[in-house]
Parts: sequence; C-alpha cells; structure tokens
Amino acid sequence: MTERLSPARRREALAGLPGWQDAEDRDAISKVFTFADFNAAFGFMSRVALAAEKLDHHPEWFNVYRTVSVTLSTHDAGGVTERDISLATAMEAIAAGTGLKP
Amino acid sequence: MTERLSPARRREALAGLPGWQDAEDRDAISKVFTFADFNAAFGFMSRVALAAEKLDHHPEWFNVYRTVSVTLSTHDAGGVTERDISLATAMEAIAAGTGLKP
Repeated sequence: MTERLSPARRREALAGLPGWQDAEDRDAISKVFTFADFNAAFGFMSRVALAAEKLDHHPEWFNVYRTVSVTLSTHDAGGVTERDISLATAMEAIAAGTGLKP
Repeated sequence: MTERLSPARRREALAGLPGWQDAEDRDAISKVFTFADFNAAFGFMSRVALAAEKLDHHPEWFNVYRTVSVTLSTHDAGGVTERDISLATAMEAIAAGTGLKP
C-alpha cells in the first residue's frame, strides 16, 4: 500500500478515475471538482474528511465557493501509491452522491 | 459592507486580528492556521463553513493535514471589505475554541 505505483498500474488506476490526471509539478494525481454551490462543495469535503480519517490518508485540497481542487500523494513514499487510489475512488463515489455538476 | 476598506480602517481591523496580514499578490487578507491534527483542522473548517453560509461570504482556503491557509477578499468589490473582517473575526473565535496550536 505504501510503495509507489508502477507506471502500468498507475495508468490502469487513472483510467478508472475520470477527470483525474498526473499533477504538473510533482509526483501526485489531481482533479478539480465543480459542484452546484458551496453547500454541495463543502458537503463533499465533509464526507471525504470522514473517509480520509478512516483511511488515515488525507488530501491536499483548495476550496473556493463551489470548486474543490484536490491533489493526492503519499508523503512517506514520495509519490502516488494505492492509498491515493483508494482515496480518489472514495471521492468519486462521494461526489456522485452529492450534487456534482454534470 | 461591500465597499473596499479605507487604508485607515483596514489597518485598524488587521490590528485586531492577530496573524492576519495583507496577501502578497492581490487585494486580500490571509492567515495560516495550524492545528493539532486533521481532526482539529477540519473541525475548524466545518464550523467556519456554517458561519460562511450564514454570512453569505466564503473563504478561499487550502488544507493539508493540520494546516489551513485562508485568503479573504470580496469579489464584487475587488478587494477587502467589512465582510472579510466579519468572516476573519468569526474564524478567530472559532479557532480559539477548536484546538488551535498555541
């Protein structure tokens, strides 16, 4: 769980995570979520926060009104691991249920 | 409430908001809050989110683990207004009650 993903596994994982891409300036993956309003955006963040605590793995994220920009990386591994894929997968499931803008 | 603050009023307001300062690259005020852990940081964010909805004025903020970096500005006014001071004041009160690291 805490080893950096192989290039093949990383490609495979990203292919299953729509909108996620490699971060530009570091070994990380990122996505910008856009919701209907602040209520929906922060509702998403609240549910993700609970999931992050449970996974003991936390996002870097920036919120302004209805957008949430997320960057995931595993500090201890210096890059992207299965823990990031797990958290991204949880975010996708949560976003699907909290008013993600089509 | 939606007019940019005079320089005198802005100095006065910032003097009453410890740790807040002018943002470097734009007309805004900012502060980095450091909490004991993610639980405390997100607890702070949750309380601020409720306050922001009530004030109908929202922060720009970046969270990574136990730090929350906040930038406040009033979009419609193109700079800092009393609405930002109100939200910053609310954040100070909330931070004082949610495990802000000394």
